Amino acid sequence: MKVGFIGLGAMGSAMASNLLKAGHEVTVWNRSPAATEPLASLGAKVAKSADRAVLGDVVFSMLANDQAVRDVFLTDGLLDAMDKGMVHVNHATISVALAREIAAEHAQRGLEYVAAPVFGRPDAAAAGRLNILAAGKPAVVARVHPLLEAMGSRVWPLGNAPERANVVKIAGNFMICAAIESMAEASALARAHGVGAADFLEVMTGSLFAAPAYQGYAKLIAEQRYSPAGFALPLGYKDIGLALSAADATRVPLPLAGLLRDNLLEALSSGVEDVDWAILAQVAARRAHLDERGL
Amino acid sequence: MKVGFIGLGAMGSAMASNLLKAGHEVTVWNRSPAATEPLASLGAKVAKSADRAVLGDVVFSMLANDQAVRDVFLTDGLLDAMDKGMVHVNHATISVALAREIAAEHAQRGLEYVAAPVFGRPDAAAAGRLNILAAGKPAVVARVHPLLEAMGSRVWPLGNAPERANVVKIAGNFMICAAIESMAEASALARAHGVGAADFLEVMTGSLFAAPAYQGYAKLIAEQRYSPAGFALPLGYKDIGLALSAADATRVPLPLAGLLRDNLLEALSSGVEDVDWAILAQVAARRAHLDERGL
Amino acid sequence: MKVGFIGLGAMGSAMASNLLKAGHEVTVWNRSPAATEPLASLGAKVAKSADRAVLGDVVFSMLANDQAVRDVFLTDGLLDAMDKGMVHVNHATISVALAREIAAEHAQRGLEYVAAPVFGRPDAAAAGRLNILAAGKPAVVARVHPLLEAMGSRVWPLGNAPERANVVKIAGNFMICAAIESMAEASALARAHGVGAADFLEVMTGSLFAAPAYQGYAKLIAEQRYSPAGFALPLGYKDIGLALSAADATRVPLPLAGLLRDNLLEALSSGVEDVDWAILAQVAARRAHLDERGL
Amino acid sequence: MKVGFIGLGAMGSAMASNLLKAGHEVTVWNRSPAATEPLASLGAKVAKSADRAVLGDVVFSMLANDQAVRDVFLTDGLLDAMDKGMVHVNHATISVALAREIAAEHAQRGLEYVAAPVFGRPDAAAAGRLNILAAGKPAVVARVHPLLEAMGSRVWPLGNAPERANVVKIAGNFMICAAIESMAEASALARAHGVGAADFLEVMTGSLFAAPAYQGYAKLIAEQRYSPAGFALPLGYKDIGLALSAADATRVPLPLAGLLRDNLLEALSSGVEDVDWAILAQVAARRAHLDERGL
Repeated sequence: MKVGFIGLGAMGSAMASNLLKAGHEVTVWNRSPAATEPLASLGAKVAKSADRAVLGDVVFSMLANDQAVRDVFLTDGLLDAMDKGMVHVNHATISVALAREIAAEHAQRGLEYVAAPVFGRPDAAAAGRLNILAAGKPAVVARVHPLLEAMGSRVWPLGNAPERANVVKIAGNFMICAAIESMAEASALARAHGVGAADFLEVMTGSLFAAPAYQGYAKLIAEQRYSPAGFALPLGYKDIGLALSAADATRVPLPLAGLLRDNLLEALSSGVEDVDWAILAQVAARRAHLDERGL
Repeated sequence: MKVGFIGLGAMGSAMASNLLKAGHEVTVWNRSPAATEPLASLGAKVAKSADRAVLGDVVFSMLANDQAVRDVFLTDGLLDAMDKGMVHVNHATISVALAREIAAEHAQRGLEYVAAPVFGRPDAAAAGRLNILAAGKPAVVARVHPLLEAMGSRVWPLGNAPERANVVKIAGNFMICAAIESMAEASALARAHGVGAADFLEVMTGSLFAAPAYQGYAKLIAEQRYSPAGFALPLGYKDIGLALSAADATRVPLPLAGLLRDNLLEALSSGVEDVDWAILAQVAARRAHLDERGL
Repeated sequence: MKVGFIGLGAMGSAMASNLLKAGHEVTVWNRSPAATEPLASLGAKVAKSADRAVLGDVVFSMLANDQAVRDVFLTDGLLDAMDKGMVHVNHATISVALAREIAAEHAQRGLEYVAAPVFGRPDAAAAGRLNILAAGKPAVVARVHPLLEAMGSRVWPLGNAPERANVVKIAGNFMICAAIESMAEASALARAHGVGAADFLEVMTGSLFAAPAYQGYAKLIAEQRYSPAGFALPLGYKDIGLALSAADATRVPLPLAGLLRDNLLEALSSGVEDVDWAILAQVAARRAHLDERGL
Repeated sequence: MKVGFIGLGAMGSAMASNLLKAGHEVTVWNRSPAATEPLASLGAKVAKSADRAVLGDVVFSMLANDQAVRDVFLTDGLLDAMDKGMVHVNHATISVALAREIAAEHAQRGLEYVAAPVFGRPDAAAAGRLNILAAGKPAVVARVHPLLEAMGSRVWPLGNAPERANVVKIAGNFMICAAIESMAEASALARAHGVGAADFLEVMTGSLFAAPAYQGYAKLIAEQRYSPAGFALPLGYKDIGLALSAADATRVPLPLAGLLRDNLLEALSSGVEDVDWAILAQVAARRAHLDERGL
């Protein structure tokens, strides 16, 4: 199929390359053009401007946050450049509020819209093993399903209203962050009692917590290796902010999310940015002064 | 082998029955004798008094908490009734402080001691699929290893000092409770945005959180079925208290554990006791008044 | 002096009436005209439109929140209607971000700007006993000082940059809310041990906490009388949000503010709005199920 | 009157000296005898052993914690040395549990017991300006009232059951700690926005928070002067522990107390002990990396 792909960060590049490998004709665009080169070498057409990437049947986008989605599709007018009936599959992790707004903007223009945020880090994207959440009109989701399957190991249908996929993504990222924090604090406790974090986490992730969300981060915590970032601290902080905003909008107290917000903020206030959000383990250890105490 | 088994609650009974099935000669004792009957029918010898159950090579015990362990082994003098060189395998989830104290009491009497707390609920115990943490002298742990394998799918060696196994157990239970709380809050958020808890948790436990610690509790939360208790609220509250005590002893701030303590306490203050600690999901929903709001 | 007054809620009306009593010529405007009547009967001139209220030397405004300030002064263009050199004294509790933005908008138009948020509830405003924070050019603050003294018992100069007054106001309201929460939890604890909230709070506010911020709220908590609102729950929730936003902007973890946010949200989610934020005491009591337990 | 005084730390010494100044005949005892010297020079009789200090009409005690009270009065048998009908006025801040137990021990021996914990730091004790909480039989409280008035500016009667005074003391100390934390976080926020802690706290403690509990600690926070300790960090940590224990006993969630516990623990884990618990302000500033950022 002839498709466009907007946004070629680590995630977007990996996803677009899987579309290429599956035999689709992919036209890519990225604000900073350097990112298009590796995809060009895999056979992608490179669009000179964003509107040249929205000429096929479907356009995928993987942008960083609300602001980027708003800039490209609304402010810069990309939606206006799309042909009626064209499908836009939006992979970004965006707020529930923007999810609703942008769905309405598509509807007004006779465009089809699928919210399809993903779970998985760049290595999972490269391997085509993403978990893809998909919400939108069933017929439209069905149409793009084969394309999604080229990028993910599983597609989770989440109903008609696009924002449903975004809520699940936001709530899910909150759960991941909670998992990191629980490993962070539990490992600090274990260390203080003479059990190394690596030993402790090996038991946990080999038994009750033998799940992807734990195993990857446990490795980073055990090795105290927070850089380069798999999932960068500022993005994690943004995502907890999305959970708190969604909670605010529907008046749902989330004490655990509030706690995570503060701990991420403590890490951020030190000035580091290009670190993984697993740095929460360093925050927990620092609070207990474990290094100073030789524990 | 000829062994004793002290403490026949849901967990102990299941574990003792697996020792019987593995062909060992098991003498059982329980403070309330009714619990011995099913085991007798499986071939166990029933001891009239606790000291008659500590006559073989090894005695296992699975008691409810610090108080019960202290009562049986120290106050009532069971340690004094044991022959020098005998091995005591203590499966209870006890405090780090008691773990140290009771190890010393064994050493003083020339008794061997293995701390062997377990991960797994009664159904896992019945199926012989427990994860067993084991700390103590390597030679002694090796001696009881075949017996432990009759009860668990995996034995995790944790070094010489017995309390190391208890710390891992305590920190692990804290992680389980954190997992429940994160599902509780995230599900409340999803519900408030129109995504049912069952739908939401199906995605999460089918993807990133495809691990035993999540799947069992997710089912309870999705079905709002907290009774009968798989792991009872008061026990969970006790275990978070053990984590906070261990943190106090080594001066490790655990903000997440403090939050869990309060939420468990909120559930307890309503007067319910025989409910699973997954009732944390009800606390989160009640705080958001989801039922009153028809969400 | 000839002055204008924009915004005649409970606070603004009381403040404007004190300007009248001090002999100033006051022209008032309020979006909903009914609120102007009592002031007209005290001698105020009533402006038909907002721009007719900004014709004197100084205009005061007391609007509810960022949105109202933005609507009136920026979107509806009131700043453009003001004469160069005129002074605007903004009493609203607004975000630090808007404080900076609106100060710049004044400067661009050659208008003088004083940020002057106040501490005190409507009864203090009526009695002219407000504490008024004032930040802006010293000469300009000096010019309006006699007017401020007509409304407050004390004016606190806070330097040149207007947002400094807003930060102090936001941080101060956070402290008030923390004071309420500490009375709420401490009273719940006292009640559970048989000491009535009234008895307990009488001791505390008669000794260590003999301060206005405590005495007023203690009365509400002791009498469980949360309506009518002296300071309404949604405003309090907004103000804690301002503290968290200011903390976000400068990366300052505020765990206590996060806790307050959740507890206010719990109160709000029940659907009540026209209650005092001292309702935090009801939240604390409900969590402990004190009423159900007859405590 | 002829009275005894047990326990001559900073508080006890100041209190005993006021009894002397009021003309009473005071026999003092302290575990470490050096502390008796200044009082001897004021005219106190020095008892060689504790039982020699309990020979008059009333004995006062001001010991550090549960353990010290238990050791002196129960384990070392001082209660058994007291004459039937003698009154013991216990000023220590002890747990509700011990408060109940020790009241019963007095009753069994025909001794009178008044729980009389105090609010006030050593300087207030020296000046006779303590707030004294008093619970016990009204006739007995009346008998010791003139003596209490020699030590405090106000005596607060709290009813018959002695533990009532202890609950109020524990809940009150929790409120003080919450006040410190709120100043700590609010000051960090103000600093991050360019308003010095001293300027900010001057406004707050000169207006809404013009109360002893704030003014003393505000001074320490503004000057970042945490040593010597007016109220030492480990004692503060102990007292928050007493609040959490009392909450545990009656199942009252206290999220704010949990937060304080963790922050005090963070301060303690750094190894400092002889600092005031106002050091919470340093914890808040460190979390935000204010010094590193030059804020």
